[in-house]
Amino acid sequence: MTDNTRRRRVSGRARAGGRAAQRGRAAKRLARQGGIRDEFRTWIDRRIPHFDVLDAEALELIEYNADTVLEEIGIEFREFPRALKLWKEAGADVDGERVRFPRGLCRSLVQATAPSEYTQHARNPKRSTIIGGARTVLVPAYGPPFVHDLDRGRRYATIEDFRNFVKLTYLSPGLHHSGGTVCEPVDVPVNKRHFDMVYSHIKYTDKPFMGSVTHPERAEDTVAMAQLLFGEDFLPHKTVLTSLINVNSPLTYDATMLGAATVYAENNQATVISPFLLAGAMSPVTMAGTLTQILAEALAGMAYIQLVRPGAPVVFGSFAAAVSMQSGAPTFGTPEPSLVLYGVGQLARRLGVPFRSGGGLCASKVPDAQAAYESANTLQTAALAGVNFMLHTAGWLEGGLAMGYEKFILDVDQANMISVLLKGIDLSENAQALDALREVGPGSHFLGAAHTRANFETAFYRSTVADNNSFEQWQQEGSTDAAQRANGIWKKMLADYQPPKLDPAIDESLVDFIRRRKSEFEDRDY
Amino acid sequence: MTDNTRRRRVSGRARAGGRAAQRGRAAKRLARQGGIRDEFRTWIDRRIPHFDVLDAEALELIEYNADTVLEEIGIEFREFPRALKLWKEAGADVDGERVRFPRGLCRSLVQATAPSEYTQHARNPKRSTIIGGARTVLVPAYGPPFVHDLDRGRRYATIEDFRNFVKLTYLSPGLHHSGGTVCEPVDVPVNKRHFDMVYSHIKYTDKPFMGSVTHPERAEDTVAMAQLLFGEDFLPHKTVLTSLINVNSPLTYDATMLGAATVYAENNQATVISPFLLAGAMSPVTMAGTLTQILAEALAGMAYIQLVRPGAPVVFGSFAAAVSMQSGAPTFGTPEPSLVLYGVGQLARRLGVPFRSGGGLCASKVPDAQAAYESANTLQTAALAGVNFMLHTAGWLEGGLAMGYEKFILDVDQANMISVLLKGIDLSENAQALDALREVGPGSHFLGAAHTRANFETAFYRSTVADNNSFEQWQQEGSTDAAQRANGIWKKMLADYQPPKLDPAIDESLVDFIRRRKSEFEDRDY
Repeated sequence: MTDNTRRRRVSGRARAGGRAAQRGRAAKRLARQGGIRDEFRTWIDRRIPHFDVLDAEALELIEYNADTVLEEIGIEFREFPRALKLWKEAGADVDGERVRFPRGLCRSLVQATAPSEYTQHARNPKRSTIIGGARTVLVPAYGPPFVHDLDRGRRYATIEDFRNFVKLTYLSPGLHHSGGTVCEPVDVPVNKRHFDMVYSHIKYTDKPFMGSVTHPERAEDTVAMAQLLFGEDFLPHKTVLTSLINVNSPLTYDATMLGAATVYAENNQATVISPFLLAGAMSPVTMAGTLTQILAEALAGMAYIQLVRPGAPVVFGSFAAAVSMQSGAPTFGTPEPSLVLYGVGQLARRLGVPFRSGGGLCASKVPDAQAAYESANTLQTAALAGVNFMLHTAGWLEGGLAMGYEKFILDVDQANMISVLLKGIDLSENAQALDALREVGPGSHFLGAAHTRANFETAFYRSTVADNNSFEQWQQEGSTDAAQRANGIWKKMLADYQPPKLDPAIDESLVDFIRRRKSEFEDRDY
Repeated sequence: MTDNTRRRRVSGRARAGGRAAQRGRAAKRLARQGGIRDEFRTWIDRRIPHFDVLDAEALELIEYNADTVLEEIGIEFREFPRALKLWKEAGADVDGERVRFPRGLCRSLVQATAPSEYTQHARNPKRSTIIGGARTVLVPAYGPPFVHDLDRGRRYATIEDFRNFVKLTYLSPGLHHSGGTVCEPVDVPVNKRHFDMVYSHIKYTDKPFMGSVTHPERAEDTVAMAQLLFGEDFLPHKTVLTSLINVNSPLTYDATMLGAATVYAENNQATVISPFLLAGAMSPVTMAGTLTQILAEALAGMAYIQLVRPGAPVVFGSFAAAVSMQSGAPTFGTPEPSLVLYGVGQLARRLGVPFRSGGGLCASKVPDAQAAYESANTLQTAALAGVNFMLHTAGWLEGGLAMGYEKFILDVDQANMISVLLKGIDLSENAQALDALREVGPGSHFLGAAHTRANFETAFYRSTVADNNSFEQWQQEGSTDAAQRANGIWKKMLADYQPPKLDPAIDESLVDFIRRRKSEFEDRDY
């Protein structure tokens, strides 16, 4: 009997049992399947091992080489004298803007004071999350200036799109964090849009969020708004912001990012120090060389944060894709960046700090098979590699240039699956199911078995988007593809959206603050 | 600087270097990227660890429970007295058609004589492959009665479609094996189509292939044709066929499959003993229970093969999906079957036999995002789980009911990536790239570096289907999605196809054999 014949034969039996099971469990199902019911999920507890591709000797080699890079070549800290001063005091060799580090200095600074995990508080305490350890926090995509949906195609993102993605993330229990620049609201002046973005993350959701990093002043505004939200006494004792600091790879930190990072560190707010590499262009064309550079850059940045404020939370970030050596275009979902990601996860765990990398990355312009293969390859890798803070989990299209509405829905479904995967295999007596095997025996089926009836509701992940029906039923329902079904889902979610309560006094103080600050300077497009 | 800004800034630099690199390397690139150039790849050598989700204690528990199932419940061997006789002689308790096994009997039979790996010879010795150990052999999908392409939609498969998929597999260096029932040629009578299928695998390719299993006589015909191809003396000393034996789960072997398996075993030909489970219907609704049943069923079948002919090659197979407990439909690419797959890989390695599981499985009817997410999730899992014989690597749509032309092309691209992933990270001095880091230093780029120029041709996997160009260029080229691009690829491959040489005397003897055998009995549709 072929696989296929077996499949069809059983399908009829299964359906009979399935129908009986449908009655009156809609609510529970909704909660389990990752629909819009809210369960205050705050992270995924990992119960399966990490996947390690490098052995101890290989890891020591990469660590040794990274120290060689830090010692011989060094890192440039550009147009930011404060960093040079701190490095000189810490015993580094400062030559102009080039800083060279005695072997082991950066590692020992990080290991001495950087926390292995930290709580990021949300305005709703039930949504406060912990970043680090055996936890995975899923976060939407970050940075796209465009949005894409099936109805209107690709267009510049607006503040309305920004709010929409904040709302969709709020309504997705599989995403634990509201993220930061979920898209660039290009209808708001560059130098003022951080107010609207941060306000949206406060107003339309109660999940934790990220701060502005495009100018030190904007980081200060973010901290000020967080103080209005959480109260003057809350910061700097508690961490309420996790913000993204990209390294100007290779081997360079610029004043913008250093300035923002310094503001956050001074206020005990978390930063994700992320070497941002398209291998072959910003790092060597080999995986071992790229791993070496990532470790060197991240070590220098995280150590700098510890010089600014010992104990300030830092996350070891990594964004490594490969350029096409034929066209120069970035590529995603290919095997070499996956291998690098597994390796960086191991390096971060040896260092003892939380680890950030990417989720559903792809180069495709539309939510097609390319987008899905590439995104799944990256997401699976990130999950098995032990990423703690998974940026770009949902929505990413076109190498990060576009945030896709349908892509977001498709990715959230995958994110929900990751939470099941990381739970691993239940080995309880109930799960061992020997009584079910005894009850059913050879040649029968398990659909009506007592064990099946007792367990089916929580048994298998049920996709929010996949069509598993027969070809004929699928045809009757319009022969839709996954993107078309996702289109209906995000529209319904936005139509049903209800905002979480926000204290009107706090809301007013935030609106006042934004009005005052916006009036203090001219609009600018940089 | 956001991820996105960085991306755009570098893209221009990269493109400049990229153009220079394009000149005169088309041939090498084609070979590397898994295009249609043939390199006689015969398997993937695995150089990264397996991903293990269960610890030793958990594995011992599953093994203990499987022995409990074999001892207490037993397995039915239906309408096949020879099996009952062999089991009685081997010391099992035979009660009607139910066979119960003393603890450890099946395991010791398998471990005593089943080979840990075996060579499957191809008619072209350069294409002979080895199944087992640290190797992965990729095989197209098996069994679909329908085919699907963008031009004609879904329709019943014909012998022409069958030949087309044999040809496409032949032209795909990433697939090491021609497979078996790549689709069901429903325009040929059921009881005679095995002749045409086996002949197509001999005539239109020189890769190794699978035999007919739908009747013991058809297995005998397959062996006879293999003898005509390889010579009377070659079989039974050498293995030239690997054929798929699905268990009639739960806990039952039927006469059809037992008959075919016995023919192959007697002739020292390999069989893949595959519990075929839709968990919740043919196995318990829990992962641990399903793992227990898979192990019990596979052990009994592989041990039976060793009773028929000690030393005959057997592969521990597993096909485990989950039914939707709401509709009864099979689902694919979800996390529970992935966890089961990781677990079965571990159980197979502890037993010391080769391991078969699925590649790009999906429920989608079309090559859309659903198809790709589901397929990538399964393929990545199978690759990391250490599958030795990966059936259904390419083409599978609609739960195995349809073989997709575009899906095949998309999956082959992913299969090519798996071969890169499993190679792991090169740690040679060249790959460490310290000289490249010294040469380039902070703030510059690697595109023109000597190290990049020396290594770029073999550096990164280049997809055959993905579009990594700018949005504008993609628009100019017709705004295609991945399936549309795949459509052009398979048509070009078929148009360019050249058959491998086949000795005319052998060809004639096969055609004569088929003509004679077909004339000996009436057409039947079962």
